[in-house]
Amino acid sequence: MFTTLHEEKVFKDPVHRYIHVRDGLIWELIGTKEFQRLRRIRQLGTTSFTFHGAEHSRFNHSLGVYEITRRMTEIFSGKADWNEDDRLLALAVALLHDIGHGPFSHSFEKVFHTDHEEWTRRIILGDTEVNRILRKMDRCFPQAVADIIEKTSTNKLVSSMISSQIDADRMDYLLRDAYYTGVSYGQFDLERILRVMRPKNDEVVIKASGMHAVEDYIMSRYQMYWQVYFHPVTRSSEVILSKILMRVKDLQERGYDFKQKPLHFLSLFAGEITLEDYLRLDESIVHYYFQSWQEEDDPILKDLCNRFLNRRLFQYIEFHPNERMKDWPKLEALFAKAGVDPSYYLVMDSSSDLPYDVYRPGEEERLPIHLLMPDGSLKELSTHSDVVEAISGKKRTDHKLYYPADVLTDTRVDQEIRDSIQSLLTTI
Amino acid sequence: MFTTLHEEKVFKDPVHRYIHVRDGLIWELIGTKEFQRLRRIRQLGTTSFTFHGAEHSRFNHSLGVYEITRRMTEIFSGKADWNEDDRLLALAVALLHDIGHGPFSHSFEKVFHTDHEEWTRRIILGDTEVNRILRKMDRCFPQAVADIIEKTSTNKLVSSMISSQIDADRMDYLLRDAYYTGVSYGQFDLERILRVMRPKNDEVVIKASGMHAVEDYIMSRYQMYWQVYFHPVTRSSEVILSKILMRVKDLQERGYDFKQKPLHFLSLFAGEITLEDYLRLDESIVHYYFQSWQEEDDPILKDLCNRFLNRRLFQYIEFHPNERMKDWPKLEALFAKAGVDPSYYLVMDSSSDLPYDVYRPGEEERLPIHLLMPDGSLKELSTHSDVVEAISGKKRTDHKLYYPADVLTDTRVDQEIRDSIQSLLTTI
Amino acid sequence: MFTTLHEEKVFKDPVHRYIHVRDGLIWELIGTKEFQRLRRIRQLGTTSFTFHGAEHSRFNHSLGVYEITRRMTEIFSGKADWNEDDRLLALAVALLHDIGHGPFSHSFEKVFHTDHEEWTRRIILGDTEVNRILRKMDRCFPQAVADIIEKTSTNKLVSSMISSQIDADRMDYLLRDAYYTGVSYGQFDLERILRVMRPKNDEVVIKASGMHAVEDYIMSRYQMYWQVYFHPVTRSSEVILSKILMRVKDLQERGYDFKQKPLHFLSLFAGEITLEDYLRLDESIVHYYFQSWQEEDDPILKDLCNRFLNRRLFQYIEFHPNERMKDWPKLEALFAKAGVDPSYYLVMDSSSDLPYDVYRPGEEERLPIHLLMPDGSLKELSTHSDVVEAISGKKRTDHKLYYPADVLTDTRVDQEIRDSIQSLLTTI
Amino acid sequence: MFTTLHEEKVFKDPVHRYIHVRDGLIWELIGTKEFQRLRRIRQLGTTSFTFHGAEHSRFNHSLGVYEITRRMTEIFSGKADWNEDDRLLALAVALLHDIGHGPFSHSFEKVFHTDHEEWTRRIILGDTEVNRILRKMDRCFPQAVADIIEKTSTNKLVSSMISSQIDADRMDYLLRDAYYTGVSYGQFDLERILRVMRPKNDEVVIKASGMHAVEDYIMSRYQMYWQVYFHPVTRSSEVILSKILMRVKDLQERGYDFKQKPLHFLSLFAGEITLEDYLRLDESIVHYYFQSWQEEDDPILKDLCNRFLNRRLFQYIEFHPNERMKDWPKLEALFAKAGVDPSYYLVMDSSSDLPYDVYRPGEEERLPIHLLMPDGSLKELSTHSDVVEAISGKKRTDHKLYYPADVLTDTRVDQEIRDSIQSLLTTI
Repeated sequence: MFTTLHEEKVFKDPVHRYIHVRDGLIWELIGTKEFQRLRRIRQLGTTSFTFHGAEHSRFNHSLGVYEITRRMTEIFSGKADWNEDDRLLALAVALLHDIGHGPFSHSFEKVFHTDHEEWTRRIILGDTEVNRILRKMDRCFPQAVADIIEKTSTNKLVSSMISSQIDADRMDYLLRDAYYTGVSYGQFDLERILRVMRPKNDEVVIKASGMHAVEDYIMSRYQMYWQVYFHPVTRSSEVILSKILMRVKDLQERGYDFKQKPLHFLSLFAGEITLEDYLRLDESIVHYYFQSWQEEDDPILKDLCNRFLNRRLFQYIEFHPNERMKDWPKLEALFAKAGVDPSYYLVMDSSSDLPYDVYRPGEEERLPIHLLMPDGSLKELSTHSDVVEAISGKKRTDHKLYYPADVLTDTRVDQEIRDSIQSLLTTI
Repeated sequence: MFTTLHEEKVFKDPVHRYIHVRDGLIWELIGTKEFQRLRRIRQLGTTSFTFHGAEHSRFNHSLGVYEITRRMTEIFSGKADWNEDDRLLALAVALLHDIGHGPFSHSFEKVFHTDHEEWTRRIILGDTEVNRILRKMDRCFPQAVADIIEKTSTNKLVSSMISSQIDADRMDYLLRDAYYTGVSYGQFDLERILRVMRPKNDEVVIKASGMHAVEDYIMSRYQMYWQVYFHPVTRSSEVILSKILMRVKDLQERGYDFKQKPLHFLSLFAGEITLEDYLRLDESIVHYYFQSWQEEDDPILKDLCNRFLNRRLFQYIEFHPNERMKDWPKLEALFAKAGVDPSYYLVMDSSSDLPYDVYRPGEEERLPIHLLMPDGSLKELSTHSDVVEAISGKKRTDHKLYYPADVLTDTRVDQEIRDSIQSLLTTI
Repeated sequence: MFTTLHEEKVFKDPVHRYIHVRDGLIWELIGTKEFQRLRRIRQLGTTSFTFHGAEHSRFNHSLGVYEITRRMTEIFSGKADWNEDDRLLALAVALLHDIGHGPFSHSFEKVFHTDHEEWTRRIILGDTEVNRILRKMDRCFPQAVADIIEKTSTNKLVSSMISSQIDADRMDYLLRDAYYTGVSYGQFDLERILRVMRPKNDEVVIKASGMHAVEDYIMSRYQMYWQVYFHPVTRSSEVILSKILMRVKDLQERGYDFKQKPLHFLSLFAGEITLEDYLRLDESIVHYYFQSWQEEDDPILKDLCNRFLNRRLFQYIEFHPNERMKDWPKLEALFAKAGVDPSYYLVMDSSSDLPYDVYRPGEEERLPIHLLMPDGSLKELSTHSDVVEAISGKKRTDHKLYYPADVLTDTRVDQEIRDSIQSLLTTI
Repeated sequence: MFTTLHEEKVFKDPVHRYIHVRDGLIWELIGTKEFQRLRRIRQLGTTSFTFHGAEHSRFNHSLGVYEITRRMTEIFSGKADWNEDDRLLALAVALLHDIGHGPFSHSFEKVFHTDHEEWTRRIILGDTEVNRILRKMDRCFPQAVADIIEKTSTNKLVSSMISSQIDADRMDYLLRDAYYTGVSYGQFDLERILRVMRPKNDEVVIKASGMHAVEDYIMSRYQMYWQVYFHPVTRSSEVILSKILMRVKDLQERGYDFKQKPLHFLSLFAGEITLEDYLRLDESIVHYYFQSWQEEDDPILKDLCNRFLNRRLFQYIEFHPNERMKDWPKLEALFAKAGVDPSYYLVMDSSSDLPYDVYRPGEEERLPIHLLMPDGSLKELSTHSDVVEAISGKKRTDHKLYYPADVLTDTRVDQEIRDSIQSLLTTI
């Protein structure tokens, strides 16, 4: 069992000023190698190609989610509907909720169909330092933590603290990503929101007097998604990253003789990656391979790695898939004629593929936000707020077509072909 | 030759809000692979083990130095003693001043006697993208840039903008490192200081009315050095890093059969590293090797790499070298008896080894700060400011002894030996 | 005529860091007694009863509007459709746009039907220091300034800089009021918006790439109106203030023998106030009288002044005028029975009376915001932005009923009457 | 007796984000008319003539001191040497410590020899709302509060929380005045300092690990004194204010027939002011009279009031009293010849007259700052900190000579006299 630390530990944090650790359990979890590994995985993947300040790691964010959750437990303490025995459970979940993330998760998950939530479960329940520490609490404790992260727990209240439309995870990442990118959009009054949160039956609700602060938070989220998370330049680098992974897999399957074999990726290609292999993957490893592959003979792999490392990204144009789809085969054919493989160099990317989850009441897995009215009843947020209603009703998609701009200026390519490409891109 | 960009480019920056690029020269330099490589080298090396927010890269800082210099040139424009022809020279120097940095420069320079300023020169003058772009300005331009960075230029005015007691480099790193660590110490009024800077003969001077703003800057520097840059936990991680490098070099020299050969380090060990090899080194590569070496047979290399990656740092105590030196051999002997090689596990580190350069008037290479009095004369800062005088007179050193805390709790080590070590550490 | 100042003057400003004055015209205008008088009139009137930080004056805000306008002129400089001759006109208008404000303008205008824009005109065109300085520019210059403030000028471009849906006035007050109240809502990226503003024909338009920054500004405005400007506690203090003014006027008309005669108000009561009298009115004068009137014999005047100065405000409840109007006479009768004059102590206040002007496209005098599309065409903002569309369509009103809470606890009032009042208030 | 409030009350505060009130006692004290009166007295008197943002009131600051003290009591709670019974005493003292301040205290105290601390005592012990509320706690409670503010209490620990070299009062005003002026100097890490404060015997001490944060606070104080509090422009307006008060007193004594009699000042002139009269004085009253006196016949009073209200301040030059004293009578004679009464228009002001109290160990009434060493012993701060030692040793004085610049350009004055004045001012 764990006790309270003799002396509180603090981490200096630019977003929350200080992060306070008073529980032995939390202190030991932070020290595990699985958690320390998050230092080598950036929170926003390739976003720093667009916003150079955004180089912060998932370690950084995980501590922030923990701290917000800790403040929630302080506020909930002594309130009806809050079980003080859930405090350490909530804190452990907050700290570990992202522990299954690998490098550039979004692209890896797309190409290899991995799932960071599945890996979180395996790290928590498997043969790991994290698991050994959680088990010291209680034999069932790892399972309790995993269930909440997997959203299968019956403890809905703790679940809603970490995973809902307005949870510690989102509140931290909006503030943190805004801080590191330097944009002004992610600001909202965290302290006010915490002060109006209440445990109520099996969910966290918001006192109605705090509605405007929640509106402000929802708007921040909306702005951050379109201004930062879905930024077309970031998506361009993700497109290249995905294509590198696809190319390596393809070359491996075709028996290509690598100068630098993709040793860390083999089990991933084979779909039978072990926990040990998974934990070895971090951004350093990926960068190491990409650097090495700049010297491979395969021109596509070599070129894409060079583009990624030296930020020679693809150009993009707006693209409306329905109307223009008929020109697509023509464009592919022209690229092929220009000696540029369209399966790697002509990419359509839609932001609706991405985890866009600006508030939609009741839809999907996430619970709506409930306001606690003065008479004790609950009302769903969008029924009270014009602004939220406006956003929640509308799905927005954004299609972009990515391609290397140099294809249009490469004098080795026939002028006529280039003109045709140019012309198609203009009208598409 | 370069022209002004058709449309200004901006980078969102959390410290300066925006970084403005209007010159083709600067835009192209930012796009070089040598400059993009700085994205993979963190500004503060291992400091993020102490301040988890400090994960920002040298790319980030280099843009900041450029921006401050750009603002200086705007203020100087039209003033006597300022030659508008020096504008692009100053901007290029500002952007490139750190381009020779490798990963964890401090430790690498200590162990391998490399010199990042020498590498900066080689990158600027050698066969690189940076060189090719600089040469487009003028055949002599690369040399002019290199001379200023090497402090051999006769253009003292531009030199003093980038390298003096109060230059664009320091002003940016103090503000930036404070921002990312989250400490409050690094704040000073940059805008005010810029407004009172004047070109005067061959140096940048400060209008006397701005003296208090400069005092505040000097105090920020003082606080940042002792609170952040010399933090004992950061030094602990640097100690381990240096010892890993020493161990690898030693093993290589002794013909140890590595599972993962230190290919990227071989020419470094041999003291004959090429520019191409040097540019391949970045933090990802170092992390890749450290991760691989966790599985080597050599127990020291394996252990040190594990400590570094998983942040299992050495403990430290205050140490006064003169008085206690007589106990040193005893301590070494006890460590050896405990099976812990003292040349790797018992390390004295002094902060006077480190680049401590709080303002000292006239000493060393850096020029003093001169105040421009209302009558046009110049006075050295510390003759006017009590606070600066107080700091400039005093050298401060801080000695720490680093060792693994577990040696004292490892039950495989004889209890008597551990007690003796404990006792010596307490009295030392 | 005026020249550029020999040395730029700066004001330290918490919102814009520094306010820069380079023109003799502006420097002299700031020094006039009519402009200095704005130091004695707070920007937000009684808001500091709700947000104690909001004690800043109109002087403070007027400098801020000037500074934003100055930055606009820097950005417009050299652009087509911008006439550099309009620069000083724009700056003078920005500085002087609020010079006609008196103390607690909102309440005074309501009770005495004065109009601060009319007074602005009289100050600019009348026998004042401001007028004498403006005339030094050109005989027609005062009229040109007045015409823009009165919105009768043919110079639509300069008008739109200071008075439109997104002008220097609003951008400054949102940022400034947020800063002084301490709320987080008023934040938006001023620098970004300035960078995307363009003069285009006779209005200021926004480059389409800046749409999200404008959305964020619109949302800030929306939040500030409901969270700060229409705060019910502030409205409670305004209700009392208006009732004091009404009572004094009524007493004066009825020939009441004041201990402290309302000398400064007499011409106001008579509807024939001179410019000289008007300029004498500031918050100090009002406070002086209110303090004196705490010792009048008239119980209503005495009581209301005491309430105002010592912040013993009225209580409020939500009120839906249509449904409950039938109970209104009953309530008035009960108040009268309780010895509490309902014409002073039972007040309905609706926020739609107040200058609520969250963006509505095309309606009213203010021009819509136009986005400048990449092809050079203009599109109205709400046709492009879901969020803005959502807000622009909906009028919101908020009705409150104000009354002194002590009427319900005053034991000198018959218990039955109090119960009836309580009961009516609950159901109303 | 008081109880904890049913629901916590919060005030939005720009410096501390929120101010939390949980005790009925504090809530009622804030509501008293004596405390509300502080809304009409600015914290920094005439400083807003120099820094236009600094218009905040003593009400504002008093809430801030209360909040910092409240946080101290939270940290001290449960610690040895802290008596929980002192909590409400500390909070009441913090809230009320400045309640005796009148308008422009510094100038009034200089001219009329009043003492705001004496008035604080009279308000706390006299026939006031404050006193009636304090007495509800306990008959001796008002005296206990007064004793601490007067520094005669035996409860040294609570005294040191509100009044020592590093107390809640100073920490709030440095942060608050920096916030409202907009200067960057007043920043220090309040949260860190609070975390290292400990009650120890009968004083608040600082854990040695927090020494650098305290150094930073001391430096902030040093900078704020010289950059803000002793700013020569502010002193110029104080000089004029003092001269107005002197002139009115003199005219009254000489039987001058005022158009607007100085009714509110009569008992002050007579040295027999009552509590009731004192509480009537606030900045509005002073402004009212100054405005009225602009129309008096006495040319000096009329002129000085005009200068003050319209910010037509005196010019200043550096002045070294010892060396130049011999020229002083000559200068006075020349001013008299020019028709400008030197007793009102030629003023020497020294900043050592002002409450300059940058840290001096042991001197004067204020206790030194003690560091709590790891071994439990106490060490005085300046013996450990080079920076603090440097400042604490040195007294600094600054002498300025103030006069109206227009005397030198007034063509009604004989040219020769003006030249002689000019010449003397240049060499003085």
